[in-house]
Amino acid sequence: MREKQTVMKIEVVRNILEANDRIALENRAIFDSNALLAVNLMSSPGAGKTSLLERTIDNLKSELNLGVIEGDIQSSHDAERVAKKGIQVVQINTGGACHLDGNMVRNAFEKLDLSLINLLIIENVGNLVCPAEFKVGEHFKAMILSVTEGDDKPSKYPLMFRESEALLINKIDLLPYVDTSLDRIREESLKVNPGLVIFEISCKTGQGIMEWCRWLREKI
Amino acid sequence: MREKQTVMKIEVVRNILEANDRIALENRAIFDSNALLAVNLMSSPGAGKTSLLERTIDNLKSELNLGVIEGDIQSSHDAERVAKKGIQVVQINTGGACHLDGNMVRNAFEKLDLSLINLLIIENVGNLVCPAEFKVGEHFKAMILSVTEGDDKPSKYPLMFRESEALLINKIDLLPYVDTSLDRIREESLKVNPGLVIFEISCKTGQGIMEWCRWLREKI
Repeated sequence: MREKQTVMKIEVVRNILEANDRIALENRAIFDSNALLAVNLMSSPGAGKTSLLERTIDNLKSELNLGVIEGDIQSSHDAERVAKKGIQVVQINTGGACHLDGNMVRNAFEKLDLSLINLLIIENVGNLVCPAEFKVGEHFKAMILSVTEGDDKPSKYPLMFRESEALLINKIDLLPYVDTSLDRIREESLKVNPGLVIFEISCKTGQGIMEWCRWLREKI
Repeated sequence: MREKQTVMKIEVVRNILEANDRIALENRAIFDSNALLAVNLMSSPGAGKTSLLERTIDNLKSELNLGVIEGDIQSSHDAERVAKKGIQVVQINTGGACHLDGNMVRNAFEKLDLSLINLLIIENVGNLVCPAEFKVGEHFKAMILSVTEGDDKPSKYPLMFRESEALLINKIDLLPYVDTSLDRIREESLKVNPGLVIFEISCKTGQGIMEWCRWLREKI
């Protein structure tokens, strides 16, 4: 009984992932036809995704048209924070689901005027595991790791590090107060994904934000 | 097509949860027959689960026989840290899965001599979402929130706060350096779960650990 159920579960999971991949491809085609770059931003809860968005918008809004999709299980705190910046934003509440999928993002971007956006940042649910498995139509994934989470995370949660093109190591202003080694984060991350582009930032002080924004601008 | 798949998905998810609940009940009966208390310990990655275990073992091992089940997607760092304390410990590697389930915990505790254990702590995968949905046979759930994660988490990730009997607010030594209000964490947590028992702790300085251990001892 337990075995039959496991087989059925694997089968359904594969079907779900394949159906999601198809929707994600369609989403991406729509993004391409609007000539916009879409970024899937992921991290643990509280690592600083929304703070990074605020900093990124402040830095780039004079030269680019930004749009944001906010993913949360519940609440609209983050969309309210981003809306204050005067850009297009839409909130997804997953109602329990631990990640965004292609379909949720589709329903969200249909509420935006994509023709007015060059850079769409999709803030995923705070979770270092599940979001890495589900494409939403992004051109690339970026992840944040806060130094307060410790330097052993790349080997413990390898998929997200492997799937991401950029790693932002956030809260470096807290380094004097925690037992975390930046060198070890770099070393372990590159062991999992040798091509990873790494930024050391502090959304509190603004350190490193310029470099990240310059890199983003070059991607567009 | 998409609708049919959603219905199938919900059906399978319900079957999986029901089968898991049955195994969890069996696990709990085995724990009861060995007169041991089992705690399911959950949090985001890097909030301090393993550090809390180390502190708890140091405080209680002279009077209680502790055992630990370590859940991680990959690696055995945490089991190695705990093994240094000279207690029974077994590592589960979920190989991608974002939470522990009843079956994984069953396979793990079969490697322990339960008759020699009074207090079994099951450290779940670092994830503030999925572990809250899966019982593993525990007598109660406890969760950690680090102050560096911010004070808006109870309303954004309500299920884990609702399912937990105890909330440990960790890293209070970092309060001077972050924009987090302990009062707001307390208030928002109690709004979600009015019966929650809250401890303010620092695994770094040891603050609050005695109160937590005293409470644990009273539960046994």
